[in-house]
Amino acid sequence: MKIYKGHLLFTPTRNEFRVIENGYVAVSDGRIVGVSSQLNHFDCTNAELIDLGDRLVIPAMCDMHVHAPQYRNQGVCMDYELLTWLNTYTFPEEEKFADTTYAERIYRRFVHALWRMGTMRAAVFATIHGDSTRILMRLFQEAGMGALVGKVDMDRNCPDALCETVDEAIIANEALIAEYSDPNALVRPIITPRFVPSCTPAMLHACGQLAQRHNLPVQSHLSENRDEIALVRKLEPTSTCYGDAYNRYGLFGQTPTLMAHCVYSTDEEIELMRQGGVMAVHCPTSNLNIASGMSPVRTLLDRGVRVSLGSDISGGHDLSMFRVMVYALQVSKLASVTLGVKPQLTLPEVFWCATKSAGSFFGRLGSFEPGYEFDALVIDDSDLNFDHYTLLQRLERFIYLGDDRHIVHRYCRGMEVPEPKLSHDE
Amino acid sequence: MKIYKGHLLFTPTRNEFRVIENGYVAVSDGRIVGVSSQLNHFDCTNAELIDLGDRLVIPAMCDMHVHAPQYRNQGVCMDYELLTWLNTYTFPEEEKFADTTYAERIYRRFVHALWRMGTMRAAVFATIHGDSTRILMRLFQEAGMGALVGKVDMDRNCPDALCETVDEAIIANEALIAEYSDPNALVRPIITPRFVPSCTPAMLHACGQLAQRHNLPVQSHLSENRDEIALVRKLEPTSTCYGDAYNRYGLFGQTPTLMAHCVYSTDEEIELMRQGGVMAVHCPTSNLNIASGMSPVRTLLDRGVRVSLGSDISGGHDLSMFRVMVYALQVSKLASVTLGVKPQLTLPEVFWCATKSAGSFFGRLGSFEPGYEFDALVIDDSDLNFDHYTLLQRLERFIYLGDDRHIVHRYCRGMEVPEPKLSHDE
Repeated sequence: MKIYKGHLLFTPTRNEFRVIENGYVAVSDGRIVGVSSQLNHFDCTNAELIDLGDRLVIPAMCDMHVHAPQYRNQGVCMDYELLTWLNTYTFPEEEKFADTTYAERIYRRFVHALWRMGTMRAAVFATIHGDSTRILMRLFQEAGMGALVGKVDMDRNCPDALCETVDEAIIANEALIAEYSDPNALVRPIITPRFVPSCTPAMLHACGQLAQRHNLPVQSHLSENRDEIALVRKLEPTSTCYGDAYNRYGLFGQTPTLMAHCVYSTDEEIELMRQGGVMAVHCPTSNLNIASGMSPVRTLLDRGVRVSLGSDISGGHDLSMFRVMVYALQVSKLASVTLGVKPQLTLPEVFWCATKSAGSFFGRLGSFEPGYEFDALVIDDSDLNFDHYTLLQRLERFIYLGDDRHIVHRYCRGMEVPEPKLSHDE
Repeated sequence: MKIYKGHLLFTPTRNEFRVIENGYVAVSDGRIVGVSSQLNHFDCTNAELIDLGDRLVIPAMCDMHVHAPQYRNQGVCMDYELLTWLNTYTFPEEEKFADTTYAERIYRRFVHALWRMGTMRAAVFATIHGDSTRILMRLFQEAGMGALVGKVDMDRNCPDALCETVDEAIIANEALIAEYSDPNALVRPIITPRFVPSCTPAMLHACGQLAQRHNLPVQSHLSENRDEIALVRKLEPTSTCYGDAYNRYGLFGQTPTLMAHCVYSTDEEIELMRQGGVMAVHCPTSNLNIASGMSPVRTLLDRGVRVSLGSDISGGHDLSMFRVMVYALQVSKLASVTLGVKPQLTLPEVFWCATKSAGSFFGRLGSFEPGYEFDALVIDDSDLNFDHYTLLQRLERFIYLGDDRHIVHRYCRGMEVPEPKLSHDE
């Protein structure tokens, strides 16, 4: 057993932080045995005590919507809205991932960047290419970081080079599923129809069958952009809403489901999400950069929908989930002033979204509670802490002002995660 | 004469970047002699060539609205709107600046942080305290960085400890003005009535007189928040708009004037700004954090109003003007989707706002043109530049993803600016 001593901050509920100054968290076999302000709370026989001093210890970050092959386009190409942006910048970049050498080079950088920002779990879109997707899964596994990795499925409204048949998609998925069949592994497949505009009914149906046959989770996009929603209405005229177009194919809560964006979800769609336990992934940076709009997160939470956060590279520009939290707060404030969506989100709420709420999609992690996997970051904020700040203010300042330099240790499932290699040679 | 060789990127107009790959900029006596893609364009007798290699060379940043005494509150205390926020967090912090020891400690950190972020010119609010303001001016001078520093004037709706008489305010201002009387100095006073709610008509009148008597610029706040505007309407019932309440006291273009925010400026107010050459300072981070709203920057530009950018610490949370540019783009995109303010701002426009447009308030700087002061940053983006990016994409990625680690040289008025000291001892 290992016992870590430091200032513990986490969100057992979304209403407030639990703060334990000079607290102790005991970890055995990757899981938390207990948390206490007193060392003598634990049976310390054979326990190793790791004193982290004046540092902050917080749950590690979960990024619930991110496109690994768009890593090269991070911070560029954000001058169009969704559909034009996809065709102009995103699809041409994704085509390059037919080349596994290119894929490995970019994916190594991507995994390294997640590590740097303290993201220890992610739900990731790859491309349609099975071989490149396999490389990404291996890189996560080698890094010791948790990921749900989706080979993307699409068969309409996309360039020929990114178009596949339903059979091709199923075969490639089945191969990856067979290779990554341990349900307890850190790296797992996730069924990933890109979104309704890119998938024929046959593809959507096949994806739903695949997910249910293997009891695998599903991820896709939902109600992100007005033009996209109009297109879905045209493509799926008998669906009562965008979410219903997934639901009728078994892709909306029949197995655990992530839906990114939900900017314009109607009351009906929100109710469908609640009923199916579908988790909304709020991506505020992306929704700003490609001019999608403001997701009414307060409404989603109030109606009982599960909510997490995503960086959505490269619609989003920042892989730091701390920055994504800041944007979630800011967009919520703007939505309260301009759209009347009140009250504003709070810091514990967005922190909870990126940790405990998101973590519930992987199992039990994202909080420091008995039985939870120990996914944690150790923050050395000494340069930010130059005055008399409370522990909560120190965390807030790190979230708003800090960067990778402040993250001095990263743990995933109880193991310290060393810096992943950027290339074979390094 | 010194000749710097590198990739030059700047905005002579707001419509597009000028990009000179492996270009040369020649500097003499702090000013730019010329810019060329050919070395033989210059008479190189007695010239020193400084080869900056594959680095980007760009104009240094100008932060046109920032509160130095709020540096301690950066990244915390953003859960209220303007008026409550001022009374709850900001005024109590500013009261501490009666203590010059505290002031010097915080102001050293503030100047250091500006330096770190590549901001070589700033328009700064201090507090009402003359002695502390004097320290801030000295620290800028010692650092070799340009600043317009304002002793804040206020005499109503503020705590007793921050309330002064008109006579006290004038005496303190006159003393600073006498000490910093060289019109060509890097550090200059700026007349700073806090805002209409904090200043009686007598104070506003005295500030206007002071500015005109000494031909000094003016800075204040304008139409930031709906409650604030309602309060101004009550306090100045005969003014036709908030801007008019400044204008009638000689504080709206009678001398060069900066007005921060302009979120809710009416057509009349915008026209008053245009006529007076009043420069709007757009502070998008602050407008999000304390839930003010979205400034219609496109409308201001279209109507011929001068526009610059401000970090507005601590309503804003980020001192990087590069991040402020990103937020300006994002808010503009959201304003186009939700309010119909179109077209969206572009990258060259926001860059121009933070460099050449802002620079025009100080004289001639913020661009690489003959006769302009050489204020520049050298950017080593090699870790961001891992693929085939154009020079413009490299700049864009630095703006979206870069940080102080990428800024390897800083120049102000032709002199390289070394790292300022954080304390007497260091």
